[in-house]
Amino acid sequence: MSPTVTGFEVHDIRFPTSEQLDGSDAMNPDPDYSAAYVVLSTDAPDGVAGHGFCFTIGRGNEVTAAAIEALRPHVLGRTAPLTPVELAALHHDLTHDSQLRWLGPEKGVMHMAAGAVINAAWDLAAKAAGRPVWEFLARMSPEELVSLVDFRYLTDALTPQEALAILRAAEPGRAERTARLRAEGYPAYTTSPGWLGYSDEKLVRLSKEAVADGFGQIKLKVGADLDDDVRRMKLARAAVGSGIRIAVDANQRWDIPDSLRWMEALAPYEPHWIEEPTSPDDILGHAAVRAGQPVKVATGEHAANRVVFKQLLQAGAVDFVQIDAARVAGVNENLAILLLAAKYGVPVCPHAGGVGLCELVQHLAMFDYVAVSGSWEDRVIEYVDHLHEHFVDPVVIRAGRYLAPLAPGFSARMHPGSIAGHSYPEGPVWRARRTTEEVNS
Amino acid sequence: MSPTVTGFEVHDIRFPTSEQLDGSDAMNPDPDYSAAYVVLSTDAPDGVAGHGFCFTIGRGNEVTAAAIEALRPHVLGRTAPLTPVELAALHHDLTHDSQLRWLGPEKGVMHMAAGAVINAAWDLAAKAAGRPVWEFLARMSPEELVSLVDFRYLTDALTPQEALAILRAAEPGRAERTARLRAEGYPAYTTSPGWLGYSDEKLVRLSKEAVADGFGQIKLKVGADLDDDVRRMKLARAAVGSGIRIAVDANQRWDIPDSLRWMEALAPYEPHWIEEPTSPDDILGHAAVRAGQPVKVATGEHAANRVVFKQLLQAGAVDFVQIDAARVAGVNENLAILLLAAKYGVPVCPHAGGVGLCELVQHLAMFDYVAVSGSWEDRVIEYVDHLHEHFVDPVVIRAGRYLAPLAPGFSARMHPGSIAGHSYPEGPVWRARRTTEEVNS
Repeated sequence: MSPTVTGFEVHDIRFPTSEQLDGSDAMNPDPDYSAAYVVLSTDAPDGVAGHGFCFTIGRGNEVTAAAIEALRPHVLGRTAPLTPVELAALHHDLTHDSQLRWLGPEKGVMHMAAGAVINAAWDLAAKAAGRPVWEFLARMSPEELVSLVDFRYLTDALTPQEALAILRAAEPGRAERTARLRAEGYPAYTTSPGWLGYSDEKLVRLSKEAVADGFGQIKLKVGADLDDDVRRMKLARAAVGSGIRIAVDANQRWDIPDSLRWMEALAPYEPHWIEEPTSPDDILGHAAVRAGQPVKVATGEHAANRVVFKQLLQAGAVDFVQIDAARVAGVNENLAILLLAAKYGVPVCPHAGGVGLCELVQHLAMFDYVAVSGSWEDRVIEYVDHLHEHFVDPVVIRAGRYLAPLAPGFSARMHPGSIAGHSYPEGPVWRARRTTEEVNS
Repeated sequence: MSPTVTGFEVHDIRFPTSEQLDGSDAMNPDPDYSAAYVVLSTDAPDGVAGHGFCFTIGRGNEVTAAAIEALRPHVLGRTAPLTPVELAALHHDLTHDSQLRWLGPEKGVMHMAAGAVINAAWDLAAKAAGRPVWEFLARMSPEELVSLVDFRYLTDALTPQEALAILRAAEPGRAERTARLRAEGYPAYTTSPGWLGYSDEKLVRLSKEAVADGFGQIKLKVGADLDDDVRRMKLARAAVGSGIRIAVDANQRWDIPDSLRWMEALAPYEPHWIEEPTSPDDILGHAAVRAGQPVKVATGEHAANRVVFKQLLQAGAVDFVQIDAARVAGVNENLAILLLAAKYGVPVCPHAGGVGLCELVQHLAMFDYVAVSGSWEDRVIEYVDHLHEHFVDPVVIRAGRYLAPLAPGFSARMHPGSIAGHSYPEGPVWRARRTTEEVNS
């Protein structure tokens, strides 16, 4: 008999990362990396549970937690969704609740909350199947995979029949690619050297370390001051040499005219891509940036849903699609986005970092390699060396590559001590900080 | 001395409208019209306070209330923003909080909450000035109006200089148009006949009543079943005759191919516009619908922010821009959208209905007439005859037109008894319903 979801626990977890300027960029000067975290427990004899979360950067994490709470009636008491049919039904129920839908539709807080719960269900289902999520997905038939996707609003760009054809075309090499992935790992790049709050000295030192560690690509945050950015880009290029790719990331800082001016100035140092030059909602703007300067364009970590990705591809606005595991409605919607990218022949280079985004998104990129695009050419997963110690099954990086996770599930589970310690506002980490503030004031 | 904001009260208010099928459409079968309502009180000697709200349709109203709460630190203890400079600063602080911004950016729950608070501040400022919001705005100089707008992400379509030129061009006729508006009122249309849950008999009866009441346009909800829609459109056309406009509204029900098929079938009955044929995020989709069938296209009530409106105009995707007073970040962002529409020469026909949306948006349309577009040609404000009795200064409709409000403020204030009675879940209206359910079960 299928187990039932008997528990639905929500935690507001925050890390005081702003104290180190880790994660600082042109739009986010002082983030406190946070997670609105949900645990679905069951009455299964082995106690299998699903873990998922929204990533936020501090204030407002309680709003995402409230949004997850609003989904409780859809999940508590439900048969644990372990099959493609049940996982598709869960996705539908959470994203098409006719009243909750008004709060988006399919965007922002409510959609991120749906993603947390859907990803928790995938964690649960993959654990029940004894597979890591990437492999759990990669062993499904093309028909099962297509049944997971909500094609509403997509059919002018991608029909179920086209999706099926893409997946069938990638079927023959699955076993070989799985073996190769297990042996070699998936290519990564690192953002750790390039935070905007870091000194020139730290930037140069960390850039060299990244190359020594085997990364073929690094990323620099840009966008606050053009002269600073030119100087930093020059320093980084000198530090790593011409054989290493340097992506730059403006975190939505510019209008279109700014984007063009800035990239003309940085172009001599050969940036690999310009990421988020402008508003993540500005499809036509990204197309104009792509057309108006020589550097390739990447975006997607803040794209609200599959409809925005569809248009970025239709408009020829991007050279790289940057999925995020925890902003859209979880695995199901990211599967739609992977299929759209495959249809348009655009490589997917996932966004990661924050809290646990590396842990989650590696599964989607590896599944893409095995069963969708069938390629890792021109593809890299972002890697940031922050906060992995809080996860039970953290990512493993070797020589600039993500090793394929072997443990069942979505690598989403945090250590109980990390959850308790960083609970906001009453966990000991935050209590201690308030006490220090009181003493100092 | 300027007063200080000394109180920040948030209420979760819900009306059990689903019991009557009022407000039923193809995507929203059983809405309970709701408001996450905020009151900014001050230490001014006359006790002037500002009222604002998010509109939702039931479940999740508590999430928007939590999002409003997240903005409290930006507002409580602040000098009451009574001037254009202060109102612009408030808009900036609420929409560019670097941590809260992650929850959007500028979309969904967090953005709606910013709109509620910003609109409450406008209610307060207009009351302090002794003017209704439309006139408070219409008496500002072009320079002051431009200073209210956040031009970030807009400058490829509209620069501050262009906005200034639009406003200066409309300056000469302001006094004459104000007088005419006061004398004649602003044109309205009514959606009350056309809810999807209504019987054919009720549709015909209410359509005839609308014409008898002086409306020159009505609206029908469509999108669930094509045969039903053709029958209902025929009945409505027969009921009102050829001189009355009938708009149809699909509430995002279709993909692009469906939209084209449906509108070909309805075209013989001369719909005035097709509203929200597909996803509100699908700019290119709306452009395809506009290009692919003979009926004019309207959208905007769910457009997340000014960047989406910018693109709808850039892409030639819409014949009518439907602003909503309470989905974007309040008056400031709607001013940006009015200016964009004026730049592209597209008429603004506001969305209204729900709880208090008519009360709010009339001010924006009237201001547009007096000081931005300078025209009400081809422009109409939606009117729905629901829930006005809960407002202290409800809209007044005469012969199919909104009379210009005269009371100071934004017409946003609900009666204290309505707030207390409909508070969720502990107000008497909801307690009584739970008791009835318990008795019946």
